Amino acid sequence: MSQHRSEQPHVVVIGGGFGGLCAARALGRAPVRVTLIDRRNHHLFQPLLYQVATGGLSPANIAAPLRALVRNQRNTRVLLQEVIGVDADRKVIVLRDGQADDPASSTEPGATQDPEHGSSRELAYDYLVVATGAGQSYFGNDHWRHHAPGLKSLADATQIRRGVLMAFEMAEQETDPEKIKQLLSFVVVGAGPTGVELAGALAEVAKRTLAGEFRSVDPADARVLLIEGADRVLPPFPPKLSAKAKAGLEKLGVEVRCNTLVSSIEDQVLELRPTDADPAAPGERLHAANILWAAGVQASPLGRLLAEVSEAETDRAGRVAVEADCSLAGRPEIFVIGDLASYRHGLERPLPGLAPVAMQQGRYVARLLKRRVSGDASSPKPFRYVDKGNMAVIGRRMAVVDIHGLGFAGGFAWLTWLFVHLMYLAEFQNRVLVLVQWGWSYFTRNRSARLISEDLENTLERTNLNSSDR
Amino acid sequence: MSQHRSEQPHVVVIGGGFGGLCAARALGRAPVRVTLIDRRNHHLFQPLLYQVATGGLSPANIAAPLRALVRNQRNTRVLLQEVIGVDADRKVIVLRDGQADDPASSTEPGATQDPEHGSSRELAYDYLVVATGAGQSYFGNDHWRHHAPGLKSLADATQIRRGVLMAFEMAEQETDPEKIKQLLSFVVVGAGPTGVELAGALAEVAKRTLAGEFRSVDPADARVLLIEGADRVLPPFPPKLSAKAKAGLEKLGVEVRCNTLVSSIEDQVLELRPTDADPAAPGERLHAANILWAAGVQASPLGRLLAEVSEAETDRAGRVAVEADCSLAGRPEIFVIGDLASYRHGLERPLPGLAPVAMQQGRYVARLLKRRVSGDASSPKPFRYVDKGNMAVIGRRMAVVDIHGLGFAGGFAWLTWLFVHLMYLAEFQNRVLVLVQWGWSYFTRNRSARLISEDLENTLERTNLNSSDR
Repeated sequence: MSQHRSEQPHVVVIGGGFGGLCAARALGRAPVRVTLIDRRNHHLFQPLLYQVATGGLSPANIAAPLRALVRNQRNTRVLLQEVIGVDADRKVIVLRDGQADDPASSTEPGATQDPEHGSSRELAYDYLVVATGAGQSYFGNDHWRHHAPGLKSLADATQIRRGVLMAFEMAEQETDPEKIKQLLSFVVVGAGPTGVELAGALAEVAKRTLAGEFRSVDPADARVLLIEGADRVLPPFPPKLSAKAKAGLEKLGVEVRCNTLVSSIEDQVLELRPTDADPAAPGERLHAANILWAAGVQASPLGRLLAEVSEAETDRAGRVAVEADCSLAGRPEIFVIGDLASYRHGLERPLPGLAPVAMQQGRYVARLLKRRVSGDASSPKPFRYVDKGNMAVIGRRMAVVDIHGLGFAGGFAWLTWLFVHLMYLAEFQNRVLVLVQWGWSYFTRNRSARLISEDLENTLERTNLNSSDR
Repeated sequence: MSQHRSEQPHVVVIGGGFGGLCAARALGRAPVRVTLIDRRNHHLFQPLLYQVATGGLSPANIAAPLRALVRNQRNTRVLLQEVIGVDADRKVIVLRDGQADDPASSTEPGATQDPEHGSSRELAYDYLVVATGAGQSYFGNDHWRHHAPGLKSLADATQIRRGVLMAFEMAEQETDPEKIKQLLSFVVVGAGPTGVELAGALAEVAKRTLAGEFRSVDPADARVLLIEGADRVLPPFPPKLSAKAKAGLEKLGVEVRCNTLVSSIEDQVLELRPTDADPAAPGERLHAANILWAAGVQASPLGRLLAEVSEAETDRAGRVAVEADCSLAGRPEIFVIGDLASYRHGLERPLPGLAPVAMQQGRYVARLLKRRVSGDASSPKPFRYVDKGNMAVIGRRMAVVDIHGLGFAGGFAWLTWLFVHLMYLAEFQNRVLVLVQWGWSYFTRNRSARLISEDLENTLERTNLNSSDR
């Protein structure tokens, strides 16, 4: 399929998450060519990753192949690739190419072998939409990553799932009470929605789901701790709802520790200290086979690259400040949306890194581009986020929902949470599957997707208590 | 929970597949203690592994946690462990233990640290049921394993799935026609039911499922070859059904090559030669990015160990010959069932390695043990396999079914195949989920479980055409 640059404007969308996918889908009928690029072949419904991490859902329940999602858009193609650079003057992005192309045989305009980047390929764009999101931040302590995995991808989720299930399997065969205690200790760092949901689900797995399945240990002996540096859980929520969430967590058996910071993490040991503690005093050391990180985010490395090629600035987390129309200062053809962007226009604080923000920005940019390519030269209205509310779920029966300051909690909130999440799932089939799987789990208190699909030899190697390389 | 050896006889079941699981479940109410041991935490419905390998089903659809399946049996416990030895005189098995136990603090009778086995643990039994099945055989060419993965576990299936999907992704970005051809070539070695089902599913993925999802390559250009050394596909089936299966495969676009042997496999290259060829003549070399092995089985290594401690013999594939009551010659308290066993009593040829055989043997042994522990000293009747028929499916619309020589093929056979497989799935929930997932796939011609959940960096490293280490 030939693509002459002069035919239709080429919109390159980097990232197939909420922002990028919405942008690409909204351009399906526009008179443009769209290239959607992602390092992974699927769109991931991140809010439900904690369910995969605790064996409640399968990866395929919360992910859909990107190609399937845009297959009916003849103007759209998908590339499984990683973007490693942007040349904004020449309007090309640089891909990390696994193959050495022969430039003479290339059919891609602008494809070249760039000695500076090694084996790489360039892709020309007319408009660029960058939606590569954010990863975990360890506040400068990147070496903690190895001991305290985050939860941002399916690979993360299945790794956590494996660690959690293996802890119970090993405890079943362990005879030393101290080691059993360490195996059955689970620490979640960070009490935002992700941490709260993860901690609640872990407590349920231990105290309900696995009950009766072991003969030597009692899974209900497991200890789940939730550590938070602020003075309450779910800091973005109204204090009343934070209090309800905390009560719900404690009812499930989670120990909530607010005003507590993590000062160090080593292999299966972390050190805590209260926020008002004397820095010289020794911290509290906790031994736990599973330490999970849900405490901080940092923007994708592309943020820094974009700041270098524009007049935009990045904040401490690496998010790129954008103009009122989500474009970069000095580069009106480059847009940044979603968790990578810091949007402050007309607001006291930047918009939070939430899925609905990314989705609305994606559609906004698509509409803007449609007007622009049709010759509409008028100034676009600024992006305005419509806040439809915020939710977090605690276990199987309870959630907190905050809509414009009007909050409610409990069973009805849980149903709301369920409904909204189902509606947002990108594929109809997934909605049915998730409903069936949850319906079954709910009524049987079972979590059926709790497989350790890796071979035991590799798994034991990784979770051996005696090994320092976890 | 204390377990005094004198209380109840201890039945140790090694292997949680069809044979071992049926045996354990049938002993749920027997006056015995049961320990079910497996290297993996789940029971796997192997006949549907090819569906996971081609993205039609998720791992959790065809697997269920062993603990969940026996949770209501108070006399049964599960150990995630690997058995590395059997001491039949002392009636103990040896486990590969990841931890160094302190013998003084151990609560397990017979637990010890054996310097010969390094860090290991022993488990005493009164009766032993070995059902560890079979893995792939490469007919002495074990190094082929690295270039041509088999399909025996979930890890195998997801690895194959990744390789298949990546081939299309890379072809989409490739410009060299020779490399594209290699990427879009899929070779399945072995035309038994597994190979036939895999080849049919691959052809469907390429020519139907992925149609319309790529813009540079046409997935329908993919080439799927099925290689078989015998003179027809599905050799155990009647010739008429083999012919129908071949026709069905060819209709799907599979190239079937019978009377063809594989003489060598290297990285993405295999060499074929006709069975009647001159050994000196050069073979035909095929370049294919995906070479899948479904050609031979060899018994679990435990077979050899069991032959050493009894008077039983093993056959060429390592299967252990068993007596008429499935026990080992000279060791009436040790039973071997399923693919690991070679049962010939009253038959011309040993029973085949099929799921129904293993299941019936498992239940037979359980009944035998129940009688024995209740004091019934009479000689048991010999095991008799009730052959309820054989099936293989070709794609989405067609199957062949052979019942006592009465064969039928086509759409009704496909429905029969579907029904039987659904009924055999071990968990009710899985039946519903699989039905929904298939129902959706069938009507939308989609295969929704086609995720590459690994990170791209690791995946590209593994599938790079230039790398010799695939």
